[in-house]
Amino acid sequence: MKKVRGFLFSGVHAGLKRKRKDVGLIYSLNESLSFAVFTKNKFKGAHIPVSKEHLKSGTSRAIIVNSANANTLNGEKGIKDAIRMTEITANLLGLKKDDVLVASTGLIGVPLPMKKIEKGIKLAAMSLTKNGISDFEEAIMTTDKVKKEASTYFRYKGNEIRILGIAKGSGMIEPNMATMLAFIVTDAKIELGALKRTLRFCVGKTFNRISVDGCMSTNDSVFIMANGRSGNPTIDRGKSFYMFRDALLEICRDLSFQIVKDGEGATKVIRIIVRNADSESFGKDVARRVANSNLVKTAIYGEDPNFGRIIAAIGTLSDRVREDIDVSVGEEVVIKDGRVVKFDRKKAKEKLKKDTVEIVIDLKDGNKEVEFLTSDLTEDYVVINSRYTT
Amino acid sequence: MKKVRGFLFSGVHAGLKRKRKDVGLIYSLNESLSFAVFTKNKFKGAHIPVSKEHLKSGTSRAIIVNSANANTLNGEKGIKDAIRMTEITANLLGLKKDDVLVASTGLIGVPLPMKKIEKGIKLAAMSLTKNGISDFEEAIMTTDKVKKEASTYFRYKGNEIRILGIAKGSGMIEPNMATMLAFIVTDAKIELGALKRTLRFCVGKTFNRISVDGCMSTNDSVFIMANGRSGNPTIDRGKSFYMFRDALLEICRDLSFQIVKDGEGATKVIRIIVRNADSESFGKDVARRVANSNLVKTAIYGEDPNFGRIIAAIGTLSDRVREDIDVSVGEEVVIKDGRVVKFDRKKAKEKLKKDTVEIVIDLKDGNKEVEFLTSDLTEDYVVINSRYTT
Repeated sequence: MKKVRGFLFSGVHAGLKRKRKDVGLIYSLNESLSFAVFTKNKFKGAHIPVSKEHLKSGTSRAIIVNSANANTLNGEKGIKDAIRMTEITANLLGLKKDDVLVASTGLIGVPLPMKKIEKGIKLAAMSLTKNGISDFEEAIMTTDKVKKEASTYFRYKGNEIRILGIAKGSGMIEPNMATMLAFIVTDAKIELGALKRTLRFCVGKTFNRISVDGCMSTNDSVFIMANGRSGNPTIDRGKSFYMFRDALLEICRDLSFQIVKDGEGATKVIRIIVRNADSESFGKDVARRVANSNLVKTAIYGEDPNFGRIIAAIGTLSDRVREDIDVSVGEEVVIKDGRVVKFDRKKAKEKLKKDTVEIVIDLKDGNKEVEFLTSDLTEDYVVINSRYTT
Repeated sequence: MKKVRGFLFSGVHAGLKRKRKDVGLIYSLNESLSFAVFTKNKFKGAHIPVSKEHLKSGTSRAIIVNSANANTLNGEKGIKDAIRMTEITANLLGLKKDDVLVASTGLIGVPLPMKKIEKGIKLAAMSLTKNGISDFEEAIMTTDKVKKEASTYFRYKGNEIRILGIAKGSGMIEPNMATMLAFIVTDAKIELGALKRTLRFCVGKTFNRISVDGCMSTNDSVFIMANGRSGNPTIDRGKSFYMFRDALLEICRDLSFQIVKDGEGATKVIRIIVRNADSESFGKDVARRVANSNLVKTAIYGEDPNFGRIIAAIGTLSDRVREDIDVSVGEEVVIKDGRVVKFDRKKAKEKLKKDTVEIVIDLKDGNKEVEFLTSDLTEDYVVINSRYTT
């Protein structure tokens, strides 16, 4: 992996979790253009209004993150604590508090243990290094089993532009957005409007099209920082814009897939492809109904090409769907023109043994295509989520 | 239980299931006013258009039902087979096929084994008796663990009016409607318009407000037959109408509760009460978001008063919800004016050990109240549904 120039990372153990790292810090050596996209949930984590406020300038220098506590539903104290996190960080790094963004993830409705947090931030500020990426990744995990990162680069007019994405989140995953935090850093030089447009576009196509359990979180946030160290001619529109967008899309798509794959209790990724929808938004509705059907998710877990459950899920959209649709599961056509077709059940079951399973739905009603990712539903999901807080 | 006058029942084993009864028949000794409410799913079982057609006259004499096969997605052949079921029944009972209604439940996309069905209908017609209710109940079961019936009566101007309801359905339960069949018979003498209005009203308040897994079925149907044998003055409007409606509501509410209680893998019924909504429909939206949250359902299974997951589910409705709502779980107030309150976690957990658990949400935005039932989500749900067809 090629390092993105000018960014330092750290992750430390502050005692919010029993053993694993729980406070993480990203620091940019110079001012970075910055933007973020947040959850649409009414009850938002306190870090969201605070980060929004600090993003008004369009720039930042650092992001301080804690896991194990979402700092959500904590009222005025929650807001104060989130601001305090940016102040402590700013003081240690010689910045203004407005230069620092903040994110929290974990349990809802428990006040932040500020003494531990303060100790953690101090430790994190001292530990910053180019090589701290892996520590940072650990520090943001909650029920995640694996760390999640993706990186890429492209050349533009002799300059190499690098992008690194880091994410967490494995439950409470549902569009807008997944329960997830994602942090993307790049050394691209880019116009702020272009950076915002690109991030919104990529989040819409990726993080907003994944679902583990249909539950939208209070804390979802995707941050991006661009520090311009690549020295490229400023990206604003035209070819360079699309090159950057493609690269960012690759990062977001990769992280989305990793999140679903690490979905709580998941054994498979289900890739739902809706073809020939009359609009992208309706195609997404169809995909989401299938993705959030517990019966479809358990069938795929059982490696059963159960077209009945898929059809029942699509049919909930009632008269907006044509009767003569096609459906295939694991590459076997199971419904053709709205009728069940004879298919090789053994072969279909064999295909469902793979780690990634495809359900393709042809709506025959337009020309839009939508891809949506979800995971299967297993006993382990139930075990994890019935024993999470006790 | 007082028998509803003039109705005979039977349930027999025709070989669609390995051992249990699988073909059931209801027969009225005289012409009955009849009506039914069906699923809104686009992909409907073949029994639905056929029964709809036969209901055009507003009367019927019998209902023939099979389980183990939904006769859904079977194209023209499915329709033909459903009609054939009514013909066979009519021939045996000396009726016209239009006098017979039909219902199927079970696997989707498998043609009905008509030889077995025919044999079953013959057997069922021969076995009709006043005491066949329990056999009929067994014959309509799929993954149900227990039989479901409810009965009541009331006196009106010296006449006793009796109502009996029978239902099946434990998975693919989601409003409009549950995956369920319900058959209601009454000896009331009632005007057809009043009968239709009453059934629609009661289904809206009960069967359309339950959910086991958020999956809407292709075959849901609620039938009612009223044969007038009570001899009461015809019910049309006024006091008698409300007496009848209250009695029918009691039956539908009772059956709905039984369906949720027998939900696949369920250990608890979750009663979600939304208070002070600005409209009934929005109150239902809020209740449904909570009812269909896998995270809430697993938390209740784990006997965890996890307000965070409830708040996250409500918050998905975004700006339509006020910030200062109240939430209580198992009678303990956990959120007051949008803030977490200190509550006795031990006491709350104790309350969650009950079979029926209440979540009360006060939206403070109007005066409508909505009740919604769902079940918890357990490992057993996953086991049942990942191994149902193999």
